[in-house]
Amino acid sequence: MIYADNAATTKMSRRAIEKMVLLTEETYGNPSSLYTFGQRAKEALEEARATVAKLIGAEPREILFTSGGSEADNQAIISAAELGKKNGKKHIISSAFEHHAVLHTLNKLKKEGFEITLLDVHENGLILPEEVEAAIKDDTCLVTIMFANNEIGTIQPIREIGAICRKKNVLFHTDAVQAIGHLPINVIDDNIDMLSASAHKFHGPKGVGFLYAKKGIRLSNLIEGGAQERGRRAGTENVPGIAAMAEALNESVEKMAENAEKLTEKRNKLIKGLKEIPHSAINGDEVKRLPSNVNFCFEGIEGESLLLLLDDKGIAASSGSACTSGSLDPSHVLLAIGRVHDVAHGSLRLSIGEDITDEDVDYIIKSVKEVVEYLRGFSPVWRDLVAGKSQFILP
Amino acid sequence: MIYADNAATTKMSRRAIEKMVLLTEETYGNPSSLYTFGQRAKEALEEARATVAKLIGAEPREILFTSGGSEADNQAIISAAELGKKNGKKHIISSAFEHHAVLHTLNKLKKEGFEITLLDVHENGLILPEEVEAAIKDDTCLVTIMFANNEIGTIQPIREIGAICRKKNVLFHTDAVQAIGHLPINVIDDNIDMLSASAHKFHGPKGVGFLYAKKGIRLSNLIEGGAQERGRRAGTENVPGIAAMAEALNESVEKMAENAEKLTEKRNKLIKGLKEIPHSAINGDEVKRLPSNVNFCFEGIEGESLLLLLDDKGIAASSGSACTSGSLDPSHVLLAIGRVHDVAHGSLRLSIGEDITDEDVDYIIKSVKEVVEYLRGFSPVWRDLVAGKSQFILP
Repeated sequence: MIYADNAATTKMSRRAIEKMVLLTEETYGNPSSLYTFGQRAKEALEEARATVAKLIGAEPREILFTSGGSEADNQAIISAAELGKKNGKKHIISSAFEHHAVLHTLNKLKKEGFEITLLDVHENGLILPEEVEAAIKDDTCLVTIMFANNEIGTIQPIREIGAICRKKNVLFHTDAVQAIGHLPINVIDDNIDMLSASAHKFHGPKGVGFLYAKKGIRLSNLIEGGAQERGRRAGTENVPGIAAMAEALNESVEKMAENAEKLTEKRNKLIKGLKEIPHSAINGDEVKRLPSNVNFCFEGIEGESLLLLLDDKGIAASSGSACTSGSLDPSHVLLAIGRVHDVAHGSLRLSIGEDITDEDVDYIIKSVKEVVEYLRGFSPVWRDLVAGKSQFILP
Repeated sequence: MIYADNAATTKMSRRAIEKMVLLTEETYGNPSSLYTFGQRAKEALEEARATVAKLIGAEPREILFTSGGSEADNQAIISAAELGKKNGKKHIISSAFEHHAVLHTLNKLKKEGFEITLLDVHENGLILPEEVEAAIKDDTCLVTIMFANNEIGTIQPIREIGAICRKKNVLFHTDAVQAIGHLPINVIDDNIDMLSASAHKFHGPKGVGFLYAKKGIRLSNLIEGGAQERGRRAGTENVPGIAAMAEALNESVEKMAENAEKLTEKRNKLIKGLKEIPHSAINGDEVKRLPSNVNFCFEGIEGESLLLLLDDKGIAASSGSACTSGSLDPSHVLLAIGRVHDVAHGSLRLSIGEDITDEDVDYIIKSVKEVVEYLRGFSPVWRDLVAGKSQFILP
């Protein structure tokens, strides 16, 4: 199998697995316990916190461990909203192509009387800092913009947006689930107040993530109970999982430059190859995107059939976010960058991993070409397009 | 080390670790993905759901996987409250010695206008079903009573309480974190509508738990986002952790009768030995308690010093809940069963594991006796008691 769906989840690294197993077997005490065996778990927990903090330029106390990226997104946004509400500020700015963990939380807040502005992401999948600035009002309490999009991989001008928020004294949160471990991130340089991360996107375990919140930001609890995580997140800490996440992040950051260079080369080769398919288009900016991300639309076909046939050929790919598969609606991300429904349905996301070879790339290109051609062969939509009964949208 | 703090957390079983590692290495796909490799993870997830469901007499679709017991408690209570609110029912019945995951959630609801009745747990740490019945009012939307207490191990008359709730048409939730895997539980026979569980209390991994909710009960989301868990809990499922939880629960249930017999014998031996310490008392009913749980108060000493000296002797024990350690307040559980502050401070919880030997039991009894005597030797409180300047409370 060629696993080309690393945006959905990644394989845990050997180092991370070993760390998880070691702590599971030898340091299984409850970190809240007073005795030495519990305190050893506490030390492992705080070591992981220090590691994670250092890797993003934060302080250990600014890191809150969660069960994943969705929980971190929820808690960041709810916290900012509650802080805003206290000051009579109930306006939040975000974008139309955020992850559902952000969009659905904003929807909930909308029902509670918050005003939500969703910025346009333009055809290239990028947000313009000046449009963020123009949208900020006196009662804006939060700007939340993802670091890199999970479907089309476009990288946002986070530092510039953060600078604007700082100038305007508005909290700035970024869902960095797709970016962390893959792109350089420093919360100070990048002007980030809150940041969400998920371990399984950078070769760490599933069910673990973290929220960075700049000191001074009072977080609200999503989960009430014991006094873990300075009283802001109840529940016995998953020390083996957390330590494995820190290990995986450390490893990812160590190898980042090397991996990025390799992935970028393979990605560009993939893009070049897939562009040869007529009536196709890359989704999102070709350069300002994650080194791992390739996303195309092919006119006249159904993305789901494409995936199933690629699966038969041993290629694991997706049409968009795994979190929304099963849904018949086209990707909200592709609609946000202006793709019409029909075209958005025919999408393919390849998110490649560091172990990809040139042979894999060639095989993917060949396979996609074959499958697209095959599917178009009996697509009534394609037949109409070719017959001139309807107009091609993609060149 | 003699690990006698299994109520705080347990060591993962070999079988559970192997399951977790196997799935981490071989079935790491995202269960929401369409391709075969993702669907294999989906199958593992649904197999775990079926296993867990079967072990408690539920249907698979009634099991929602969470990040642990605290999250499950929060979600159960918030869901019942939101359902109640829709019907104008804003009264909740619970008890004074619930876990903080329950009590703090109830506190939050109180601030939102809910009326909370906390039942007395009496001197023996037991709730009387007739008192539950008497407390139910027309606007009661939920009764939440823990299955077995986490500090003193007393087992509540869950089936009787459930029957009353059913008769009165009130939802019944039980925090079964300490009970599941250790006591027989069948949600049908036990009249349970909602039940919370945490894997790391029955030799499963940390950071995983589940909520059973009888079909027809519409759960509210704590975490918004993707459509995982039938849309009721967003975030990529921790398949390896969930599968390991199912394996651990299966194993615990298989060995339950055998373990319970062994633990009960050792527990009774421990109780008999510790009773010989003058001015001591067991906390909670001596018989209606978890086979693993021993909890004593010793007059004239500080529980924390006791624990640290036992730690020096290689015994890992606690004074109460690990979740509240670090707090200077005496245990709310011990206060709830009528222990005065001074006595409650001098508490010791031993929660033994299946691998405990007779030699361990003898060593624990000998060590506790020595340490209590040693600490009393320089306790001013004890000096005053002996000198008759103050009155003994414990016989």
